[in-house]
Amino acid sequence: MDYDPDNIFAKILRGEIPATRVYEDDDTLAFMDIMPRADGHLLVIPKTPCRNLLDASPEQMAAVMQTVQKMGRAVMKAFDAQGVTVQQFNEAAGGQEVFHLHFHVLPRREGDRLRPPGNMGDMAAIAGHAEKIRAALT
Amino acid sequence: MDYDPDNIFAKILRGEIPATRVYEDDDTLAFMDIMPRADGHLLVIPKTPCRNLLDASPEQMAAVMQTVQKMGRAVMKAFDAQGVTVQQFNEAAGGQEVFHLHFHVLPRREGDRLRPPGNMGDMAAIAGHAEKIRAALT
Repeated sequence: MDYDPDNIFAKILRGEIPATRVYEDDDTLAFMDIMPRADGHLLVIPKTPCRNLLDASPEQMAAVMQTVQKMGRAVMKAFDAQGVTVQQFNEAAGGQEVFHLHFHVLPRREGDRLRPPGNMGDMAAIAGHAEKIRAALT
Repeated sequence: MDYDPDNIFAKILRGEIPATRVYEDDDTLAFMDIMPRADGHLLVIPKTPCRNLLDASPEQMAAVMQTVQKMGRAVMKAFDAQGVTVQQFNEAAGGQEVFHLHFHVLPRREGDRLRPPGNMGDMAAIAGHAEKIRAALT
């Protein structure tokens, strides 16, 4: 299916709607999920358009994975986490809701449980988590 | 943490224990998960050692993602799927059970539900699903 340039992540990339950004480089952007399933839940996306993994270029995948790794290491440090869960959904049946390639990065601790999807987080708390991640990256 | 060369995926790579292989290239191997959460559930791993995404090299990540994409496209075709869910777990708290980097690739259909983890699949059924995937790759 075609890429829709009006998806919300495209709008975030164009600065048309806000996001709590934690990292970016030439090819990728990382920002906080506003419906966090764990404290520190963030998303990594390529800056160039693709719908999901099914149509991504090798270059987009390579760039995104390097940022996923960087953010995985950062959330381990920021939240004194013991693990990281990575999820990536393709097409609605695969769990995808925004049709711009994105990877979920979720810091985990032994025995925790991910919160159910679809619940808006507390924006002040999310801002605090973002600050911890930014600090861990320096 | 250090890579354990006696993890079961290392043994599969060395041919010491069997696996239902569906694809391989110079850098990666794809084989069926024996505890499938969906028909066609497979795993993609690098042929070289790394524990998970936290210690993977850029080259390992790039190679694995290209095979994840290839297998995602293959399961869409093989199972007339409508989506693909990708999961990747890092350290025990993150959901990892075998400590060699692996990506789960799960074909999905609208309204389906993933089966609970940890239940051994029917090996004849898994062999049939593998055959469909191999056919979709040709």
